[in-house]
Amino acid sequence: MPPGGNEARGAALAELAALMHRLRTDPQLGCELEGASGEALDDAQRANLREMRREWQQSTALPEALVQARTLAASRYEHAWRAAPGQRLKGFLANFRDVMRLAREEAELLSQLQGVSKYEALMDRFEPGMTCAEVDRVFGDLKHWLRASCARRRNARARDDGDADRPFSTERQKALCEHVTRMLGFDFSRGRLDVSTHPFSGGVREDVRLTTRYRDDDFLQSLMGTIHETGHGRYEEQNRPRELLGQPVSEARSMAFHESQSPSFEMQIGRSRGFAGLLAPLLVEAFGAQPAFEPDNLYRLLTRVEPGLIRVDADELTYPAHVILRYEIERALIEGDAEPDDIPALWDEKMLALPPRHARRLSATARCRTCIGRAARSAISRYTLGAMYAAQWFAAIRREVPDLDERIARRPRAAPFDWLRDNICSPRAAGRSRSCAARASGERLNPAFPRAPGAALPCLSHRGCRSS
Amino acid sequence: MPPGGNEARGAALAELAALMHRLRTDPQLGCELEGASGEALDDAQRANLREMRREWQQSTALPEALVQARTLAASRYEHAWRAAPGQRLKGFLANFRDVMRLAREEAELLSQLQGVSKYEALMDRFEPGMTCAEVDRVFGDLKHWLRASCARRRNARARDDGDADRPFSTERQKALCEHVTRMLGFDFSRGRLDVSTHPFSGGVREDVRLTTRYRDDDFLQSLMGTIHETGHGRYEEQNRPRELLGQPVSEARSMAFHESQSPSFEMQIGRSRGFAGLLAPLLVEAFGAQPAFEPDNLYRLLTRVEPGLIRVDADELTYPAHVILRYEIERALIEGDAEPDDIPALWDEKMLALPPRHARRLSATARCRTCIGRAARSAISRYTLGAMYAAQWFAAIRREVPDLDERIARRPRAAPFDWLRDNICSPRAAGRSRSCAARASGERLNPAFPRAPGAALPCLSHRGCRSS
Repeated sequence: MPPGGNEARGAALAELAALMHRLRTDPQLGCELEGASGEALDDAQRANLREMRREWQQSTALPEALVQARTLAASRYEHAWRAAPGQRLKGFLANFRDVMRLAREEAELLSQLQGVSKYEALMDRFEPGMTCAEVDRVFGDLKHWLRASCARRRNARARDDGDADRPFSTERQKALCEHVTRMLGFDFSRGRLDVSTHPFSGGVREDVRLTTRYRDDDFLQSLMGTIHETGHGRYEEQNRPRELLGQPVSEARSMAFHESQSPSFEMQIGRSRGFAGLLAPLLVEAFGAQPAFEPDNLYRLLTRVEPGLIRVDADELTYPAHVILRYEIERALIEGDAEPDDIPALWDEKMLALPPRHARRLSATARCRTCIGRAARSAISRYTLGAMYAAQWFAAIRREVPDLDERIARRPRAAPFDWLRDNICSPRAAGRSRSCAARASGERLNPAFPRAPGAALPCLSHRGCRSS
Repeated sequence: MPPGGNEARGAALAELAALMHRLRTDPQLGCELEGASGEALDDAQRANLREMRREWQQSTALPEALVQARTLAASRYEHAWRAAPGQRLKGFLANFRDVMRLAREEAELLSQLQGVSKYEALMDRFEPGMTCAEVDRVFGDLKHWLRASCARRRNARARDDGDADRPFSTERQKALCEHVTRMLGFDFSRGRLDVSTHPFSGGVREDVRLTTRYRDDDFLQSLMGTIHETGHGRYEEQNRPRELLGQPVSEARSMAFHESQSPSFEMQIGRSRGFAGLLAPLLVEAFGAQPAFEPDNLYRLLTRVEPGLIRVDADELTYPAHVILRYEIERALIEGDAEPDDIPALWDEKMLALPPRHARRLSATARCRTCIGRAARSAISRYTLGAMYAAQWFAAIRREVPDLDERIARRPRAAPFDWLRDNICSPRAAGRSRSCAARASGERLNPAFPRAPGAALPCLSHRGCRSS
């Protein structure tokens, strides 16, 4: 988009947000929702009614002017960030203070409605039913484990795995990505795979748009990023019941549930030993036969842990540490316990307690930007919660299908896809995500799964999503 | 767009159309418009009030269901056409009959409101104040002239002008197009130039999107197409007063007025002798020195007339004949004097009276498709009316600026741009297009201008717009 277009785009988004808000808060709709009886309804219809009531209550708690102002401020903030990525802290914070002020205002109103803390009230929009106590429980457990295992994993990383010969032509990477995406069931008559600076998935269910990016020195980034986005795309496009399209019950149960689909694809299927065996001949076909593509070596490459300074390049151990840090700062900002100007100092202080300490080398602006890019739009915790859910789903699948690896090596879709569809995406999954998780996997969110001996690799990264 | 996305896209467009219709027909708005007094208003405000009243009246004449159905049918029709360009007549007509039925329904309602014929009522939405009698008058005159001059122009075409050496690299064509677009005042901080199958201009005023297409055997197609779209883009983006953005008075006065901007740029400026002199060194820089780029030869290449079978490839003489034919068929369809199935026969019959006869070689489906692609969405006449307006504007400019060609050779923007801004794009241009044309050029639309000896070339083509 040319820079001059941002204002018109922001105004159009704000206008649409206001129109949608008006539809959602229509008093007539409120009367009908209040008067509706759930008695004659089936499960899906009852879930629809519950979700529509929740939506109506949360929406009517917010004035239209706030909804509009929030959209405009987010648009202005994002544009300033894109237009001047090297921007100094002062200019960056000027726009961010506005975003934060409006997010706090929204959180305050939702907090009054729900009788919970401001951050919890805001989090409830993205993670219905999730509490800060629950996040603190799993993140607290994780923190201890991360600190202990960081040194051990570093040793594993030090081993000299055989790398593949560079460069990798963009054209061949593209063909490979499309092939693998198709293999994972993505329907190109209802979607596309394109290129963008920051990979993402979007669109509507009948037209899912995935993007990736190609580097000629690393085919794994585009490939695994594509597999990651395919997880999101499949969830949007096919894994939820088509006959309920447009009804609340067919929406993603929560952001963490959505974020559990991409690591299910990337970390649990895509980086498994079975998948390495499946991938090896495709890589030989694309880039020529070489020792790096021996399945065992390929598996080592797929599960190698390397440190990275920022979230999107972080390894599987740095990554969750990073998310925990951001969750803590985000919460302090929304609750009013910290101000945007405090972020660089807070970052340093919290980083001392978390691996890896080298991330302190980021500039103050980068610390802020990294930290608060999403703060007011969604809960950062969803990435790690999603990865933990994925580990828990696959532990459950492995209990049901002991030879999962062999099955993935033959046909990666069959076994895990059926389980995910029946347990995570079906309409009966429309309950709270906590109860759905318990029903699907036998227990509530358990941070032990990602580090269990059965979990074949450190799987807490969310590398594919590089949008913040 | 992947084919699966069409239904969702059509549904979204129809939903937006219904929402906009609801805003436009809000009874409260009607009361306010009725009660408003024009006394204390300035010219622009009075014009705004008049336009809002007109919009309100025309919109309230149409039921929301019709507005939605029309959008859905158009979307379905267009998708079927794109998905199967080789479609047989039967399948093509099945979708088109729906479009036509709804267009007639709309025309009938607007006809009752305005007390004019159905086609005239529909045309009034795109060409406020234009009558069929007026179109018949100028097209009748044109028809006679076309028939007489076709043979003469063919002889001119037969002369062997020196062509440039092929191929022309896409990269260099792209750089050339961007350079020329900038030279014509297009602001790339508020717009882009990209590639598409059918060149178009779109977007919003702060973000104007132009497209072109490159062929390695013909640099003039991309270049002149780009100049053409730049005319539309400049009108949207800069030539109308920014302080009135979003107000009716700043909208394009009529479709023909909008369509007069692109031939003003392409045919009147871009194919003038002065511009050929300006272009010559740029072509040498892009493609190397060669006799074809001598200014006199280049001017001959720019004004060469070649026959083409369909509108988008038609020459400057075939083109208006084609538009007249389509206008006549379009009118018969809307008035109910012909049915979609009659089109192939009607085409043949009318083609006998018009040059060039070879266009009869088109298949029945192509005749239908060519003929009715836009029938229900806008009046086809706008292309030729626009080209005639452009010739009339430039005759007026030449009266004021006798050395126009020399001025264009020095700086193509100055003289014509000021005149167009002050006479066509300024808020005082908000009256009916007929009175605006008369005020700007001293007389009503006059078909003599395109064929006057002062008009340096046959300028009635509208080659740049290739969307139907």
